[in-house]
Amino acid sequence: MSKKNNDKVTIFALGGVGEIGKNMYCVQYGNDIVVIDAGLKFPDEDMLGVDIVIPDISYLLDNRDKVRAILLTHGHEDHIGGLPYVLRNLNVPVYGTKLTLGLVESKLKEAGLLGETKRILINADSEVKLGSMTATFFKTNHSIPDSVGVCLDTPEGLVVHTGDFKFDHTPVNDQYADLHRMAEIGNRGVLALLSDSTNAERPGFTPSEKSVGKELKEVFQQAQQRVVVATFASNIHRIQQVIEAAYETNRKLAVVGRSMVNVVNIAAELGYLNVPDGMLIEPEEVNKLAGNRVAILSTGSQGEPMSALTRMARSTHRKVDILPGDTVVIAATPIPGNEKYVGRTVDELFRLGAKVIYGGSMSGVHVSGHGSQEELKLMLNLMRPKYFIPIHGEFRMLRHHALLGEAVGVEPENIFLIDIGDTVEIQNGQARKAGKVPFGNVLIDGLGVGDVGNIVLRDRKLLSQDGILVVVVTLSKQEGRILSGPDIISRGFVYVRESEGLLDEANKIVMNTLNKLMNENVNEWASLKTHVKEALGRFLYEQTRRRPMILPIIMEV
Amino acid sequence: MSKKNNDKVTIFALGGVGEIGKNMYCVQYGNDIVVIDAGLKFPDEDMLGVDIVIPDISYLLDNRDKVRAILLTHGHEDHIGGLPYVLRNLNVPVYGTKLTLGLVESKLKEAGLLGETKRILINADSEVKLGSMTATFFKTNHSIPDSVGVCLDTPEGLVVHTGDFKFDHTPVNDQYADLHRMAEIGNRGVLALLSDSTNAERPGFTPSEKSVGKELKEVFQQAQQRVVVATFASNIHRIQQVIEAAYETNRKLAVVGRSMVNVVNIAAELGYLNVPDGMLIEPEEVNKLAGNRVAILSTGSQGEPMSALTRMARSTHRKVDILPGDTVVIAATPIPGNEKYVGRTVDELFRLGAKVIYGGSMSGVHVSGHGSQEELKLMLNLMRPKYFIPIHGEFRMLRHHALLGEAVGVEPENIFLIDIGDTVEIQNGQARKAGKVPFGNVLIDGLGVGDVGNIVLRDRKLLSQDGILVVVVTLSKQEGRILSGPDIISRGFVYVRESEGLLDEANKIVMNTLNKLMNENVNEWASLKTHVKEALGRFLYEQTRRRPMILPIIMEV
Repeated sequence: MSKKNNDKVTIFALGGVGEIGKNMYCVQYGNDIVVIDAGLKFPDEDMLGVDIVIPDISYLLDNRDKVRAILLTHGHEDHIGGLPYVLRNLNVPVYGTKLTLGLVESKLKEAGLLGETKRILINADSEVKLGSMTATFFKTNHSIPDSVGVCLDTPEGLVVHTGDFKFDHTPVNDQYADLHRMAEIGNRGVLALLSDSTNAERPGFTPSEKSVGKELKEVFQQAQQRVVVATFASNIHRIQQVIEAAYETNRKLAVVGRSMVNVVNIAAELGYLNVPDGMLIEPEEVNKLAGNRVAILSTGSQGEPMSALTRMARSTHRKVDILPGDTVVIAATPIPGNEKYVGRTVDELFRLGAKVIYGGSMSGVHVSGHGSQEELKLMLNLMRPKYFIPIHGEFRMLRHHALLGEAVGVEPENIFLIDIGDTVEIQNGQARKAGKVPFGNVLIDGLGVGDVGNIVLRDRKLLSQDGILVVVVTLSKQEGRILSGPDIISRGFVYVRESEGLLDEANKIVMNTLNKLMNENVNEWASLKTHVKEALGRFLYEQTRRRPMILPIIMEV
Repeated sequence: MSKKNNDKVTIFALGGVGEIGKNMYCVQYGNDIVVIDAGLKFPDEDMLGVDIVIPDISYLLDNRDKVRAILLTHGHEDHIGGLPYVLRNLNVPVYGTKLTLGLVESKLKEAGLLGETKRILINADSEVKLGSMTATFFKTNHSIPDSVGVCLDTPEGLVVHTGDFKFDHTPVNDQYADLHRMAEIGNRGVLALLSDSTNAERPGFTPSEKSVGKELKEVFQQAQQRVVVATFASNIHRIQQVIEAAYETNRKLAVVGRSMVNVVNIAAELGYLNVPDGMLIEPEEVNKLAGNRVAILSTGSQGEPMSALTRMARSTHRKVDILPGDTVVIAATPIPGNEKYVGRTVDELFRLGAKVIYGGSMSGVHVSGHGSQEELKLMLNLMRPKYFIPIHGEFRMLRHHALLGEAVGVEPENIFLIDIGDTVEIQNGQARKAGKVPFGNVLIDGLGVGDVGNIVLRDRKLLSQDGILVVVVTLSKQEGRILSGPDIISRGFVYVRESEGLLDEANKIVMNTLNKLMNENVNEWASLKTHVKEALGRFLYEQTRRRPMILPIIMEV
């Protein structure tokens, strides 16, 4: 079969490669663009004051008439969290499975976008025509139910996006992966595979979620008093197993933490959680029951400062206290950067006399939702792609995934390690790395979207290190003399009371600098300010080895 | 033997319990205080701009005539890093083994305290009379040579401090632990044991440092090009093994990174490193040799932004570039909080085409210097203490160590979990938790010791989140009107250029607020400022959902 096309398939990521978070992948053929996922990322530690980060979608806005759909693989924040911001500027239909749409709808309602957004329910048998492309789906195992991979039938061939996946042969609630459909897709011939690299550094297999259930049951059986389990709110399978462990040990269950209550409600309503009648109690009722009749399901598995578990650990939760003899299970692994927060929560819980079970997958009460090396190879072998693009991971994970691709026989030159914005073009069966589309981080701080950038962040960083000194002086331009001031006000620099001498001397230096300049008839503000800044900066560095921000303000009357 | 004493032994920690870092333990009997170690801690993430943290030693300063000595167990920063600050205010003799004193002296020289500090060399056979107490020592295995534990013979009985330890039965350079002396001490009867809890959460044994050497040799043999090894500068045993692996594979060794160069020099001079003649080369010479003839020993195993490895990874090192095919070994585990930095370094190295070996003890190129549970039990069984005080660890580690103590037969009521400042008093063989001595964190920022406190840190935190707005206005008091301004200057808040409208409106709000107040004859500065702050804060929060610091400055002429 020989076909010749002037059009080509272009594949790129606006987020999700070279990072964990804000997943957004695009496949374009001619005038049709299909977007897969629209996630958010939590800010890096140098993005001071920033709330969340979303992808720069300039390319999509510039080509808004071509965007046919946003397909959602599953309901995690790093895949759907950017939707409210994207949809505000780009009103396109959103496709997702039942639970995914359920979670999306609660988000859109909050953002006031529910009415104007076209939401289309899909299941594993859906076939969606999107211009020149057709999307079908296959079920995967992941740490949230109703996860799918996407198979895009393009005129150039099949482009497969795995979504987030592991292979769990004993899944909770019989949420089996579509092994056979994956095999069929592979048989049809896959042009390009985009596959989840999160655990590409880890040898072996990721254990089944059921292994956590077994461990939880043992913990519940041994516990003499209450059991508190903290886990990710979206891990419905885990929550189901907590419910079962509680039920089997004759405990009522209270749910605490806003996001946990929200997700449990949505999942139960949509039929993804089986909750025995009369099992749930309000947090207020916890103290009315004997300790061994109670379990508590909570947020806070990452030690988040405002979460329910952290507040319980600090004895500042309004409804639930941790009592000596309680068992607390942290059924999660700390996301890199959160280790200290989780450690602190564990310390506080121990201080309250609780038995604490923690330590991530080592403890048996947590397994990853992402496949390890053997599962990634299984996916590669099922799909047998011509071209392979590792996605969803930091560069080192993509790199390891590329090595796995080579190990199972993908030609090294057919493996593309991309950064956000990089495009891979496939035309007449030949792929090559082409140019870049606009890309970047859009920082969201309060209501501001994109109004915090490098200069603002640099200033916040400076301010956070050594604080600020504001120097104000009022000059008479006519008389060429100081009318009022200089006044020096500092914040975040030193204790003023203990440093009066230092600030008095600083004052003199400003005064002398200004008088000297004015005697020399230097009157331009810019020059006066620069001299004050330099003289004062030098003096303070000599005295303290600190470099506070110095803000000279000259008023004229 | 019945003795009756009016005096008692008091044991307390000024640092090192409930935290990792700034170790400082004190044993007092009557008018004699012996201090063990004087370490520093690196600041928590909420101590913005702070360089290092040392213990509050007010108690020692108030009792300066009683302090007989500072005994040093080994040369790590968390045990000796606070010395220059402590000695500046408390000139007492310092005791340490050869390498420890070598490292201390380089520190004191820098601080200009070398001349005035009495330094006394000890070895494992020393006996030191310290008022009513006598100190002897026993060698331990740790990740720095010349580490010792301390046995203090007090009139109440033996108080033993293990220092940091593991049991390494195949130590590098034959630095065996004094197992027999520990057994003898145990036989004499130990009143109280203070023991290292760092790895109390870890089951099993910590592997021998020699296992790292084996792994390193394999890496060196397989490497086709240069090998770069990053590790802790103080880990002389590891450095020795890097030297050996390089030597056996016919490579010259360049040392990069200030602290690495410093420690290698001191250790070689004192005889703790065997460096074959002609083996060391200058970093400048690296490029003159074939890749497989070169190894590089570097700092930066924690991804520290200014370290040699980080600069190599970012291609900003002045002398060494990473080339495709180079092997980089990160022979360390990220200290909690540093995972992200290390991950970023690994990513950059992969991008440069290097093979990177990382992942802490999982990778075989790192082992801990602290004993795991079986070793901690071995120490407890050797010492068979009546009273047990777990030290050197976060609360959860102390708690786990206490459980190990119970497991080997220490009476639960004889185990004391202490916070810094807590005292344990032992009199006539009976121990009890008594009151507190003054305790706390002293923050060091630049040259300032203790001049940064809660208010300054709170301001830095506020500034780092949403920046600052300075509002300046010059008033004429006589005329009750605005002469100049209001001017609004912002830093770290928003991009000014994109937010002109917002700041213009903010200006109007300040103007209106002031005019209204002055028309009502409100003239007190405090009141004017408060009203401006409130009105502006409300407006900005409504518009942006941010709460920048607002600094109203009113000048009067």
